[in-house]
Amino acid sequence: MNKLETVQIDLGDRSYSILIGDDIFSRTDVDFSCVNGRVAVIVTNETVAPLYGLNLIGLLKKHFALIFAVHLPDGEMYKNFDSLEIIYDALIKNACDRQTVIFALGGGVIGDMAGFVAATYMRGIPFVQVPTTLLSQVDSSVGGKTGINHPLGKNMIGAFYQPKMVLCDTTTLKTLPDRELSAGLAEVIKYGPIADMEFMAWLEGSMDLLRQKDPKALAHAIKRSCEIKAWVVSQDERESGLRAILNFGHTFGHAIEAGMGYGVWLHGEGVAAGMVMAAELSLGLGLVDESFVQRLRSLIARAGLPVVGPVLDAKDNAGRYLELMQVDKKSEAGEIRYIVIDGPGKARLQKAPESLVRDVINRCCKA
Amino acid sequence: MNKLETVQIDLGDRSYSILIGDDIFSRTDVDFSCVNGRVAVIVTNETVAPLYGLNLIGLLKKHFALIFAVHLPDGEMYKNFDSLEIIYDALIKNACDRQTVIFALGGGVIGDMAGFVAATYMRGIPFVQVPTTLLSQVDSSVGGKTGINHPLGKNMIGAFYQPKMVLCDTTTLKTLPDRELSAGLAEVIKYGPIADMEFMAWLEGSMDLLRQKDPKALAHAIKRSCEIKAWVVSQDERESGLRAILNFGHTFGHAIEAGMGYGVWLHGEGVAAGMVMAAELSLGLGLVDESFVQRLRSLIARAGLPVVGPVLDAKDNAGRYLELMQVDKKSEAGEIRYIVIDGPGKARLQKAPESLVRDVINRCCKA
Repeated sequence: MNKLETVQIDLGDRSYSILIGDDIFSRTDVDFSCVNGRVAVIVTNETVAPLYGLNLIGLLKKHFALIFAVHLPDGEMYKNFDSLEIIYDALIKNACDRQTVIFALGGGVIGDMAGFVAATYMRGIPFVQVPTTLLSQVDSSVGGKTGINHPLGKNMIGAFYQPKMVLCDTTTLKTLPDRELSAGLAEVIKYGPIADMEFMAWLEGSMDLLRQKDPKALAHAIKRSCEIKAWVVSQDERESGLRAILNFGHTFGHAIEAGMGYGVWLHGEGVAAGMVMAAELSLGLGLVDESFVQRLRSLIARAGLPVVGPVLDAKDNAGRYLELMQVDKKSEAGEIRYIVIDGPGKARLQKAPESLVRDVINRCCKA
Repeated sequence: MNKLETVQIDLGDRSYSILIGDDIFSRTDVDFSCVNGRVAVIVTNETVAPLYGLNLIGLLKKHFALIFAVHLPDGEMYKNFDSLEIIYDALIKNACDRQTVIFALGGGVIGDMAGFVAATYMRGIPFVQVPTTLLSQVDSSVGGKTGINHPLGKNMIGAFYQPKMVLCDTTTLKTLPDRELSAGLAEVIKYGPIADMEFMAWLEGSMDLLRQKDPKALAHAIKRSCEIKAWVVSQDERESGLRAILNFGHTFGHAIEAGMGYGVWLHGEGVAAGMVMAAELSLGLGLVDESFVQRLRSLIARAGLPVVGPVLDAKDNAGRYLELMQVDKKSEAGEIRYIVIDGPGKARLQKAPESLVRDVINRCCKA
C-alpha cells in the first residue's frame, strides 16, 4: 500500500477531507470521527455492489452498529425521481433519523442521487462519497453538486451539499473499462490549460502510466485535480462566477452529448473534443497561439480521447451546435458564453462572435 | 396605511428582510433590489389565487418583465412530489434560468413547496415568501424550512433555504377563517413562555384586538414573533440544539395531529393543547408553579383554542400518545425529549420519566 494522500477542503463549518490511495477498503487507519452515527446506509448500483459492496461493509462494520444497502439500477437514465423514492422509502422504512450516514458507492450518478437524498432527507443528514470511477473521483469529490435529471433537462433539480468525507480508492479503477478511464482523464487534463501548466507538463510525462492504471500516478492526478478544483470552488462555492472555468470544453461537449443522444458519446469524450474546440476558439480570439492548441490536442489524443467533434446536422452543423449550446445553464437570456483559455494556465468566461464560433465548429468536426 | 414594520434577519450572505404591514400589495415603496431578475413566477393555490393573485401581479409588474403563475390544488395532502413536478415542469417549459424569482403566495404548504423548488431548481434560485395566513406569517417567515411530505411521514423531504425577502400583508388575514386565525395565534402565544414574558403580558392585554384582526396589533404580534424566532434561529440555523425550543407544545401537538388523522385538528390547535401538556409536565418536574400554568391555559383559551387534548385510544390513551411521540424527528434512538418551561420565559429540551408523562396526558385529555 502507498501512503494515503489527503486533500483538505476548507469551507468553514462544511470543511472535509478527501482521502486518496490504493486498497482503502482494507486499511485500518481510516478515521470516521467526522460521521459518528449508528447507522450506515450504502447507496450503490447493481454493477458496483457485487464488486465492492462487501469491501465497503468490511471497512464500515467496526464503526457502525447497523449497515444496510440500497441497490439502484445502473445508468444515467435512472437518475430520476423514481430512484430517489427508492432511497427515501428505504430510509423511512428503516426508521433512519438524522444520525444516519449515507455512503455513496459508485460513479457520478450514484453520488449525485445519494448526495441529493442526504441533502433533503429530514432537511439534511451526513454523507460520505466513495467514488469508484476516475471521473467521479476527480469531479464529484469537490464542489458539492448533487441532483437528478428532469425529462426536459440534465441536472435540473439538485442542491449544493457537502459530504463529510470522500474516499477515493484507486484500486476500484482496476475494474473500470479503458474507455471510461480515458473519459475520466478528460476532466483531469482540463486542469492544466485552465490553471496549472506545470500539471499539464506532468500529465504529458505520465500519460502512459495513467493509462496503465499505475496507483501512484493515478493518486497524484486525482489529488492535483481535486486541489485545483477546490481552489476554484473555495472562491465561488455557489457557482456565480469564477467556477464557470471548470466547464472548459463543456459548452461544446454538452452540445455533442445532447446532439448525439445521451450515452452515445461519454461525457468525458464530449469534453475532450469540446476542449479542442474551445482552444481553437481561444486561438481565433488571439488569446493563445497555434502551438498551445497543438500541444493540448496531442495530450488529449494520447489519453485515448477524440480530438474531432461529430457532425450533428449534415445541412447546418454549426447552427445545430449553436442551438444546443443556447439552452446551457451558463447562457444568460439566450446569449452563449464560452470558457476560453486566456493564455496558457488561465481561463475566463466570455462571449464570442457567432461567425468565429461557426468557423471553429466547421473546422473541428468530421462525420 | 400604517407604517411598514421591518425585521432584519442576519445570516451573513443569506440575510434578508421581513416587511410587515397592511395593504402591502398597494404600496409603491417596496424595494425589490434584492431580487433583480427578469422573470417572476408566482406559486399559489386555487383558493388564494382569485383573492390575491392580481394584487401581487400589480405589485410586481413594475419590477419584472415577465410574470406567470402556477396554481396548485389547495391542501396539505397535495404537499407531495406530484405538486413539485407541476412547478418544475412550468419552470422548465418557460425556459426559466437562475435569474428567475419565485414568489410563494399562500399559507405554509405553498411556502414549503415553492421554497423547496427554489432550493433545488438548477441547485437554487431566489425566492420571496408572501405568506397569507397568520400561521405562515409568524412561522414560515423565519427559519428557512422548506419541504414536502412523504406517504410515511410529514416534512420528511426538504431543505434549509432562505428567502430573499418576506412580505407579510396583514390585510390578507381579513379573508382568513376565525378558526385559522386562532390556530395561528397558538404559534404567537408560544413565544411568551419560551422567551419573553413581557410579550406574554402584551398578548394578554391585546388578545381581543388580535381576534378582531386589528392591523396594528397583528403587525406587532407578527413582528415580535419573527424577532424572537430569528434570535433563536440565528444561534442555531440548522436545528442542532437551541432551536428545538421553538417546538414547545409540538411534541404532544404532533401526536394529536397524527393520532386524530391529519387535518381533523389544525396544527395550531394541537400545539395549543400540547402547550398546556408541556406546561403541566414542567410543573410536574418542579420547573414552574401552578399559577404560571393557569395563566398560560387562560391565554390559550381566550385565543379560541383548545386547552384539553383529545383521547386517541380509549384503552391506553397515554400509551398511544407515547407511541406517536416516539417517531418525532426530535427523538434520538427512540427516546423522547420534551421542550419544557425552565421558569417563565425560558425553555429547554430534556427527557422525563414515563410515569410522569403518562400522568400529565391522563389529566390533560378528555373524550
